[in-house]
Formats: sequence, C-alpha cells, structure tokens
Amino acid sequence: MSVKKVINGMGFLEIIFLGTGGSLPTKKRNLPSIVVRRGAEIIMFDCGEGTQKQLIHAKIGINKKMKILITHMHGDHVLGLPGLFQSMSLLGRDKKIELYGPKGIIDFIESIERTVKYGRTFELEIFEVSEDEVIDDQEYKILSTNTDHGILCLAYSIEEKDKPGRFNPIKAKDLGIPKGPLWKKLQLGNNIKIKGNVVRSSEVLGPKRPGSKIVYATDTKPCESVTNLAKNADVLIHDSTFDEDRKEKAEEYGHSTASQAANVAKKSNATKLVLIHISAIYEDAENLLKQALKIHKKTILAHDLMKIKV
Amino acid sequence: MSVKKVINGMGFLEIIFLGTGGSLPTKKRNLPSIVVRRGAEIIMFDCGEGTQKQLIHAKIGINKKMKILITHMHGDHVLGLPGLFQSMSLLGRDKKIELYGPKGIIDFIESIERTVKYGRTFELEIFEVSEDEVIDDQEYKILSTNTDHGILCLAYSIEEKDKPGRFNPIKAKDLGIPKGPLWKKLQLGNNIKIKGNVVRSSEVLGPKRPGSKIVYATDTKPCESVTNLAKNADVLIHDSTFDEDRKEKAEEYGHSTASQAANVAKKSNATKLVLIHISAIYEDAENLLKQALKIHKKTILAHDLMKIKV
Repeated sequence: MSVKKVINGMGFLEIIFLGTGGSLPTKKRNLPSIVVRRGAEIIMFDCGEGTQKQLIHAKIGINKKMKILITHMHGDHVLGLPGLFQSMSLLGRDKKIELYGPKGIIDFIESIERTVKYGRTFELEIFEVSEDEVIDDQEYKILSTNTDHGILCLAYSIEEKDKPGRFNPIKAKDLGIPKGPLWKKLQLGNNIKIKGNVVRSSEVLGPKRPGSKIVYATDTKPCESVTNLAKNADVLIHDSTFDEDRKEKAEEYGHSTASQAANVAKKSNATKLVLIHISAIYEDAENLLKQALKIHKKTILAHDLMKIKV
Repeated sequence: MSVKKVINGMGFLEIIFLGTGGSLPTKKRNLPSIVVRRGAEIIMFDCGEGTQKQLIHAKIGINKKMKILITHMHGDHVLGLPGLFQSMSLLGRDKKIELYGPKGIIDFIESIERTVKYGRTFELEIFEVSEDEVIDDQEYKILSTNTDHGILCLAYSIEEKDKPGRFNPIKAKDLGIPKGPLWKKLQLGNNIKIKGNVVRSSEVLGPKRPGSKIVYATDTKPCESVTNLAKNADVLIHDSTFDEDRKEKAEEYGHSTASQAANVAKKSNATKLVLIHISAIYEDAENLLKQALKIHKKTILAHDLMKIKV
C-alpha cells in the first residue's frame, strides 16, 4: 500500500460530476449530484433522481465514509436519496451517513421511511443547517451560505485545513528512522522518539501546504453571499442554467446565466469555474461555455461523469 | 389522419419495457416500470426510480391520458413517481392522472407533496385498491389479485373487451355512405340513417374480434392467484428474479425463478411469457431464458426499452 493511500486526506481531492442537468433530466444529463472524493471519504452535494445509478457508472462503492449535503428541497436535488438509501440497505451498508440540508429534510426522510419501508441497515444522522459553519472536521471545514433562489437554498464550501509539508524520506533514513509506522507519525506532523533522541516532524517535512477549497453553488442568481463564500476558491461549481439570451428567464426562475456565473468567479477570484445545472433546453451547451470564457478564462462546461482533480 | 388513429383502441397494444431490473439498478437495467400504449392512452405498471428518464428514451410524451398502477410499496417500484410528477409539472401537464396502488400509496404521495413542494399542475386521482376488479373502462377492464411476496403486493391484468369487427369500406361505399364521420359511427358499432334509410353497423363490419389480455405479475413467488389471473393471457409479464440455482433465495425473498415463471405461464395457458425483474447478479441473463424455454416455448427475456406489439 502506498503512503498516499495510508494517509487519508494527504492526497488530492477529486470531483466527480454525477448529474449536471437542471430541473429536468435529458438523455445526456442526469439531475444534480456532485461527489468530492477525499481520501477514503465521499462528500456528496445534492442527490437528484438517478444518482444511485450514476454511482455505479462512476464505480463509487456504497459503503464508504460519507457526508451528503443537500442545497434545497426541490425534488430534482433530493429525490435520489430514498432510492440510494434503499439500495445501500439491500447491499448491507453498515457505515453511518451524515446528511445535511435545509429545514424540512428531516420531515422528508421520516415521511419516506414511514411510507416506503426499506429497512435501513445503517445509522443516518440528519442535520438541518442554516447559513453558518456546518462541519468542523479534523482536516477540513464545510461552510454554508444562503443563495438567492426564491426558496431557502444553501451553497457550501469545503475548505481543507493546511496540510503537513511534504515528507523527505532521504532525510528520514539519514536520521536513522526505519520505514514504517514512525514515518507515518512524522508525516502526520507528530514528533517521535528513537533510540533516546527526539526527532521533530519539522526536520523531515517541508513547509505546510495550503489546503484546497471547493465551492458548490446551485440553484442561485448571482449573489453577494456566494461571491463571498467562493473567495479564492480553487474550484467554483456554479449554477449556469441559461445563456445570455435567456437572462430574463434566469432572473424569473432564480438561476444564473453562464456569463453571470463567470462574473461571480471573477469577483471572488476563484481559480477554476465549472458550469453546471445546464437547462434541458440545450442539447449542446457549448454556447454557454463560450460566453463564460469571455469573462473567466479557466472555465469548464461540466458533463456527466466528468472528473476533476484538485 | 388514418382511421386507425382516429379510433382509439381499435389498433394494437404496445408494451414498452422501461425498466426490467429487480430491486437494484444496474448499468443495463433500470428499476421496474412497464408501459402499455393503447391508442392515445398510456397505462403504466410500477414506476421505479429513473422512469422519467426512460420515458424520454422511449419517446413517450408526458401529457398523454394516463393510468398508473403500482404493485406494492417497495421503493424500487414506487420511487420514480415524485420525480415524474415534478417533471410533468415543470413541463405544464394538464391532463388528469389516475393512480392505483395498494394501501399506503395515498399517504406516500401526500407526504412527498408536503415535504417536496413541486407545484403539481394536473389533477391526481389516487385509488387504494385490493384484490378486486379495479377499473371498468369503456373498452377494457383491469383486474387485480394478490401476489405472494411477503407484503401486500398486487398483480394486474388488462383485458380488452371484444372489439367491433373489421370495417368494410367497399361495402360502405356501395351502400352510398360517404367517407367521413358516418364511417366512424359505423366502425364504432352504431347504426346510422342516410337519406331516410337505416344502415346497420353489422352490414359493414366483420365479426367481433376478441380483445387482448396482458398480465403483469411482480414481485411474487409462483402462486395460484396469479396463475388464475393469467388464464389465457396473450402476454404474461412475470417475476423472474433468479435462475434455478438460486431457487432457495427466490423462496426466501418472495420472488420466482425463470423456470417457475414458465410453469405459471404453462399452467395458465398464457401465449407469450416475458421474463422481468432480473436480479442485478446477472450481467447476462441468457441462462434464465434457457431454463424457461425448456418449459414454455414462447418466452422472451425482457431488456430495457424493448417493445412488443400485441
């Protein structure tokens, strides 16, 4: 097993776009669900209908450590949960899931479990959250803010804490530390004692490395709260339902155009922008990409099962 | 417009298999949903997650006259309903839907509509049914019976009433009846009056033609009630979750093997058997087909988006 695999969270983050459509599914685009793989943990944003099938296509197992964060209670963002939980139970999942979402999510899950009894095999912890800090994990934190969508809707950021510097194996060997558990301790930033001498982790580690920041913001008009949340993000995944010609429709339904998404990315100094929640109107959404690229160079048009490493 | 199109129900029935998997979706098989197209009407059996997307693939519009019949309240048979209704509403459906299912279905729909507000744009009539006759439509009736699945689960038959005989246009012309609305009246079995003379429909119609019978039976062990319901059916669509090697598993979970399905078809003198609800264990289920064919010659292994004309 490689060191990278042993030390959870020391590797890269991977974003997997399970569903990139908006409101209605199409032949090519499923309803919203995006997964961030962080070491052995899966952090899922939204869970539209069909998500469990997209997990199969993406080859993501159903018994991983998992947090699910729901933006709002519109069906296309939440109706994949019951089927996912049923299938996980049929397959014997035993690891707890932490489910976060706006007010109403507890009532939704309880109603489903009362009327469609699927015999859940794992613990489900549900948290109704508002626009405060949601989770302070050991290695990262997740923050939330309100979007501008007409109903209560949350945007989320994952912000990794600073990671220990890169480990120098040559130096470790020079200091007489044998490869094995002691290396791991040092890599995690702990000091060790070997043959009576203390070796400080700083002796074998490079400078601390800043963590990555990913922001997921849908469904929303361009708004200040999201711009603030996305400050200096490595990746901003933003609502891009329409093109410029449908700007009024975007305003009416509480969504953004691709250009508006690009402006948010620019204002917030986000490095990479990914356009999602593409309306079913567009069979080919290249025009949305073109319009966004004029404003923000590092823009990608998401497609289902696309993967990005951060 | 052809006469066939004008006279709803005088044409053939078409069965479209939207989802043919069992319990869990796979890359190839969606969760259970089968549609019978009868003229301008759609009769849907079960609505597993992903059904709305399969309707797109099958090119079935969302504003058709429609009845939906749910067999039981396990999630894989019912969790496609909320998303389907939400999408229909987003697209402005205005035609009523009649929804039939076992006790519990009203509570399920009401709970969903309370917790996931999707602003339904059409009337929904929900009927909780038991093992009695369910619908007596003008041109067909739908009967239900209990299956043997451990929980309350219904099988359904669609039985068309006798159809008027074939219309003879040459004879109609000879009798001086001009092509148009009078022909339609005669085709529907009505007598007409033209230039003071009565023309009886029997003068221009052949002998009455027997209607078709389709039976949908899943999830179930082989059982007498389904065998009776399927008596002389043109098509029996039957649970075939496992192969013979997994007979005990089928018994344990309240399902049938392919051979058991074939025996039901044989006993009930059904013409054609279609195997559905194929377990996710089988990447290729040809073995199930082989086993059934030994018992019942006219057997088909269903695959997603398969169509059969009856």
